[in-house]
Amino acid sequence: MPKIVNHEERRQRIAEAMWRVILENGMEGATVRNIAAEAGLSAGALRHYFKDQDELLIYAMRLVNERVEKRALKILKETLPPKETVIRVFLEIVPVDEERRAEMDVWFTFQAHIRHRKDLEGAPGHVLGDAVGKMLAFLAHEGVLKEELDIGLETERLYSILDGLALHAFLEPERLVAERVQELVRDSVNRICK
Amino acid sequence: MPKIVNHEERRQRIAEAMWRVILENGMEGATVRNIAAEAGLSAGALRHYFKDQDELLIYAMRLVNERVEKRALKILKETLPPKETVIRVFLEIVPVDEERRAEMDVWFTFQAHIRHRKDLEGAPGHVLGDAVGKMLAFLAHEGVLKEELDIGLETERLYSILDGLALHAFLEPERLVAERVQELVRDSVNRICK
Repeated sequence: MPKIVNHEERRQRIAEAMWRVILENGMEGATVRNIAAEAGLSAGALRHYFKDQDELLIYAMRLVNERVEKRALKILKETLPPKETVIRVFLEIVPVDEERRAEMDVWFTFQAHIRHRKDLEGAPGHVLGDAVGKMLAFLAHEGVLKEELDIGLETERLYSILDGLALHAFLEPERLVAERVQELVRDSVNRICK
Repeated sequence: MPKIVNHEERRQRIAEAMWRVILENGMEGATVRNIAAEAGLSAGALRHYFKDQDELLIYAMRLVNERVEKRALKILKETLPPKETVIRVFLEIVPVDEERRAEMDVWFTFQAHIRHRKDLEGAPGHVLGDAVGKMLAFLAHEGVLKEELDIGLETERLYSILDGLALHAFLEPERLVAERVQELVRDSVNRICK
């Protein structure tokens, strides 16, 4: 089915063009006209793939989640020690390079935008909290989690650390270097493990 | 000098009108016309206090920082045990009630907006990191901080936890209840103290 593949590929390319426009000019610049120009299409051709800006916005947000998820699944398939797996998965979420910084920037801009768009339906929620919960359950199942922990509280703490780091990498890219992020993630996982 | 007081008071009221407009409609709705209407002024009268939207934006951002700072200073003047002081100051930053949620919402919306406004000068930065550093120095000076700690790493961790919590209180107000926020802040300060 090469035609379907091409259609989906084209949708992805348009969503990526939307990301670039947002990275450069914020949501204010993310008009159908500007996104179409960035993707090398006419506004009419773009509407063949997305009926309006909102449909494209939701698709582009989902794409951020999907990309992170795909990288996490790849790590889960490797046969690493459980603690190392969890650290590596978390480091896929926190922006430690340009690609991840751009995802976070786009994601954050989306979230600030949709917060005030009560009419927008179907926008993907923040899935990181669930992911952290699953990683802690995985560590417990593998027998490497300390036993006297309040799992709910530790999930909340790690979830806050990861999103706090992501926010700071977004707002203070020059101050918060990758090594510092890695050190804090590693130390925060280590202290809840045996 | 009653005239100066009134001028400053009016500027504050206009900035608070800007907050309300942003809370309702986001930055997209924060036009001079809308803000003036919310403040019960004509657009011309508003320009008597702020020459354009950017000047108002920067003033309104500074006002968020100032309000938090004022509450923190008030706590620092009380004579509480050092650890309790620090916990109370941190709880002024993380949104645990409607007023603080609104400040955080406005602050995040501002940050997402100015991130893509390379031309905007004089916007206040994120001062929380410095504040956390100062609180840890205070705990060390008072002799209640554990001695074998890596202060830099612990500052980064607490700073991430506070902003992560703030972000989650903003994005997931129904899930993250005040009691949970208080519990995590208290526990995270306790574990670095003797």
